Amino acid sequence: MKGKKIDLGSSACAIARSLSVVGDWWSLLLVRDALGGARRFGEFESRLGLAKNILAVRLRKLIEEGIFERVPSSDGGARDEYQLTKKGEELYVVLVGLWQWGEKNTASPKDRRLIMVDRQTQQKIARLEVRAKDGRRVGPRDYTSREIGAGS
Amino acid sequence: MKGKKIDLGSSACAIARSLSVVGDWWSLLLVRDALGGARRFGEFESRLGLAKNILAVRLRKLIEEGIFERVPSSDGGARDEYQLTKKGEELYVVLVGLWQWGEKNTASPKDRRLIMVDRQTQQKIARLEVRAKDGRRVGPRDYTSREIGAGS
Repeated sequence: MKGKKIDLGSSACAIARSLSVVGDWWSLLLVRDALGGARRFGEFESRLGLAKNILAVRLRKLIEEGIFERVPSSDGGARDEYQLTKKGEELYVVLVGLWQWGEKNTASPKDRRLIMVDRQTQQKIARLEVRAKDGRRVGPRDYTSREIGAGS
Repeated sequence: MKGKKIDLGSSACAIARSLSVVGDWWSLLLVRDALGGARRFGEFESRLGLAKNILAVRLRKLIEEGIFERVPSSDGGARDEYQLTKKGEELYVVLVGLWQWGEKNTASPKDRRLIMVDRQTQQKIARLEVRAKDGRRVGPRDYTSREIGAGS
């Protein structure tokens, strides 16, 4: 990545390590599309409008990172499909956070707007809340990082 | 950004719009460092190890996007400082999500590990949970997007 001078992947900070894996807009959009049902190369291609060669490189990177895995076609066809690993699926919390932030802080197109709903009730899902173990709300200035030994 | 063929910023999807603003590893690390107390150009520079000219461009972009604002020095010095707007601060939920995902899914260095704790109690903060309005847990496959008219 341009300008990436530090080795994020070996950082003591888990945010940096996560960003070394998914710190590009396209990786989280590929996860989004997979959660939305995309499995075939062509589905990702048409949803994201990426060139074939670029998409192939990106999917390969996400497979190397353990976010996607390549599996035989679910309908017995000749082409492999791409499915999220458990690790990949767990990124949905980050996607929900980005969705809610974007809904609040960016302007949606005038004519068309998507909202995120619970599949079962079709109601908007609740706002993500950061809380301490005792249930207290934790605001943006209420947390800090603490260094611990790797053994503790 | 390389390979960005679609106009994420005008997408109907709020995830795509968010990523058009913060879809680069460095933007979220700048937000992280600001939440961690960084205010001066030199503080961001030393924490991220970026070249001055690159950092300047990046901070300018984040100011244009309304994530940071430039304010007079808090100690009366000659140099302006950079502080998060409310919109920028609200990204902390995304950072917490990335932190928790990285803690679970990426290997921390052997000798050094940072954990995210509630400032008041020094306890680890609770895992973010996606829930429906009625309190039910919403898993990665339990939500979907629904298109609504811009007026509704």
